Amino acid sequence: MHQTLTQNRQMTLAARPTGAPGAEHFALRTTPVPDIADGQLLLRTVYLSLDPYMRGRMNDADSYAEPVAIGEVMVGGTINRVVASRHPDYQAGDWVLSYSTGWQDYAVSDGTFLFKLDPSTAPVSHALGVLGMPGFTAYMGLLDIGKPKAGDTVVVAAATGPVGSTVVQIAKRLGCRVVAIAGDEQKCRLARDKFGADVALNHKDTDLAAQLAQACPNGIDIYFENVGGKVLRAVLPLLNPNARIPLCGTVSSYNNSAPSAGPDHLDWAWSTLLTKRVTVQGFIIFDDYGHRYGEFAEQMGQWVAEGKIQYLEQIIDGLENAPDALKGLLEGKNVGKLVIRVGPDELG
Amino acid sequence: MHQTLTQNRQMTLAARPTGAPGAEHFALRTTPVPDIADGQLLLRTVYLSLDPYMRGRMNDADSYAEPVAIGEVMVGGTINRVVASRHPDYQAGDWVLSYSTGWQDYAVSDGTFLFKLDPSTAPVSHALGVLGMPGFTAYMGLLDIGKPKAGDTVVVAAATGPVGSTVVQIAKRLGCRVVAIAGDEQKCRLARDKFGADVALNHKDTDLAAQLAQACPNGIDIYFENVGGKVLRAVLPLLNPNARIPLCGTVSSYNNSAPSAGPDHLDWAWSTLLTKRVTVQGFIIFDDYGHRYGEFAEQMGQWVAEGKIQYLEQIIDGLENAPDALKGLLEGKNVGKLVIRVGPDELG
Repeated sequence: MHQTLTQNRQMTLAARPTGAPGAEHFALRTTPVPDIADGQLLLRTVYLSLDPYMRGRMNDADSYAEPVAIGEVMVGGTINRVVASRHPDYQAGDWVLSYSTGWQDYAVSDGTFLFKLDPSTAPVSHALGVLGMPGFTAYMGLLDIGKPKAGDTVVVAAATGPVGSTVVQIAKRLGCRVVAIAGDEQKCRLARDKFGADVALNHKDTDLAAQLAQACPNGIDIYFENVGGKVLRAVLPLLNPNARIPLCGTVSSYNNSAPSAGPDHLDWAWSTLLTKRVTVQGFIIFDDYGHRYGEFAEQMGQWVAEGKIQYLEQIIDGLENAPDALKGLLEGKNVGKLVIRVGPDELG
Repeated sequence: MHQTLTQNRQMTLAARPTGAPGAEHFALRTTPVPDIADGQLLLRTVYLSLDPYMRGRMNDADSYAEPVAIGEVMVGGTINRVVASRHPDYQAGDWVLSYSTGWQDYAVSDGTFLFKLDPSTAPVSHALGVLGMPGFTAYMGLLDIGKPKAGDTVVVAAATGPVGSTVVQIAKRLGCRVVAIAGDEQKCRLARDKFGADVALNHKDTDLAAQLAQACPNGIDIYFENVGGKVLRAVLPLLNPNARIPLCGTVSSYNNSAPSAGPDHLDWAWSTLLTKRVTVQGFIIFDDYGHRYGEFAEQMGQWVAEGKIQYLEQIIDGLENAPDALKGLLEGKNVGKLVIRVGPDELG
């Protein structure tokens, strides 16, 4: 079933997962395309972004933000076209980035959480990746929290994802030694050959800690953290005095429904943070850095336009495939930024 | 055996402890009082500071700094009098704070790591506490890392120690709500009645987490961390968005020789730091803030002189009692700043 002019397909949260999410936790329902009132506009979804943080929104517990309620449309960033507008700032045909549409074909907006896009400057889907939330996360996390200096050793987890690959490239531009960590040999090659990492390690290797120690002969100055788990445990003993850890994700534990088995590494980690005088800063990009979006957009737009930052996208067709794609994303199955094509650029 | 004019008693590290340290890990030996050359001065120890960090220096592993070698004099801050000087800046009778003397009666100095004290402005032993390393740790950790605002809820562990009690009082001066945590009812009373904490909780109570939640109805904005362990685990779920954790000690695990039993709380803690966008900053005061000592000394000297900051000291007589006293310190047995009186103010 494809996107139509008259029906609004909505992917809703049907049940809260324990462990990995899957198709069984979602339900696709069809409703009429809504009408708009004065001051509103009607959006049609072309691309839906899939991101690890979505797993947290499926839980009832404290996470990044309010959980999605059972029966509600699943949240997410989307690229939309304006179908009809009774809002003075928008007209039919405009491209926008929306944070209030989520996993559905159509949504009514009053302009809140909407950003206009110019399709002549970059592919519109890039606003979900290198020019959007993930790129912004990489940029501020590395520069503002990581404070890289030439010669620093930077370790980047999930290094071929839209955040990690951007971190790798900015760090290289600044003259850092970059050690990338990824989940298979193909991704390790990408991290080296396409994104320019000095070394790339497969976190599934059983001797990751030994490989990492060898790859960081001068210790680690910045650990760009988006996974946690065993990579974190391998990184901690190698941290240099005054190391910095921008912390924007812990994807390795998003599916955990209970604490991992022991021994308990928390006191050990805490002691390392003390003795090495480390700074760890958790951040959520728009909450903490929203006021600096303009600075990022200008610099990153220029880098991408000049080909100085490479970007990799994996586009999967069909809203109905989003649940399985999200499951795969959390298992590290995709390569590059994962985007769902919900509908065509032009319709009707 | 008391301090004499002719013999130098030296307390050396005899063996590395596994678990708690005790008298069996130290050896007292006697050597002649050393001679001085041009540019040197001879110091006699009056007070020796005992501090939790000393436990780490007894290990062979990475800690704050180089381990003390077996057979070497144990390190520590001391208050000394100058016995004889061939150094232009010092003369016999001067009072100094030394970081290169350690656990012994006499030491030769070339002036490095030496700070002159004026006994007319404050008791000289205060330079080991509220006016020295612990006070400086409290001041910079709370103000520079904690960034307190009036109305913030501040939780302070080890709240009657020289660091914690100073944090409690500065936070109260700034209009914060202060929840103190200490190890028995007597200390809880002190934290409230002498230092001014709004609430004081005994961390040995089995329902500490529930008591803490009740004591922090508006969550926790700053957790001044010097213990780790179960207090940390009770604090984490209560942290507010953008909470700050100045981390200057993890005393609850200093005697651990292996990671604690599971479950593993590291991923859970890491996830909390992310979702609450928390900053944790490990620091070692003179390494990270040495250049700001003057600012601290001026402000704290004024507060103490005006009686605006209260300070509690426990003085134990005799260098030979230092090993047992250190053991007790790590078990939370002392009240206030623990100091060993090694010799009299005047001798000979």
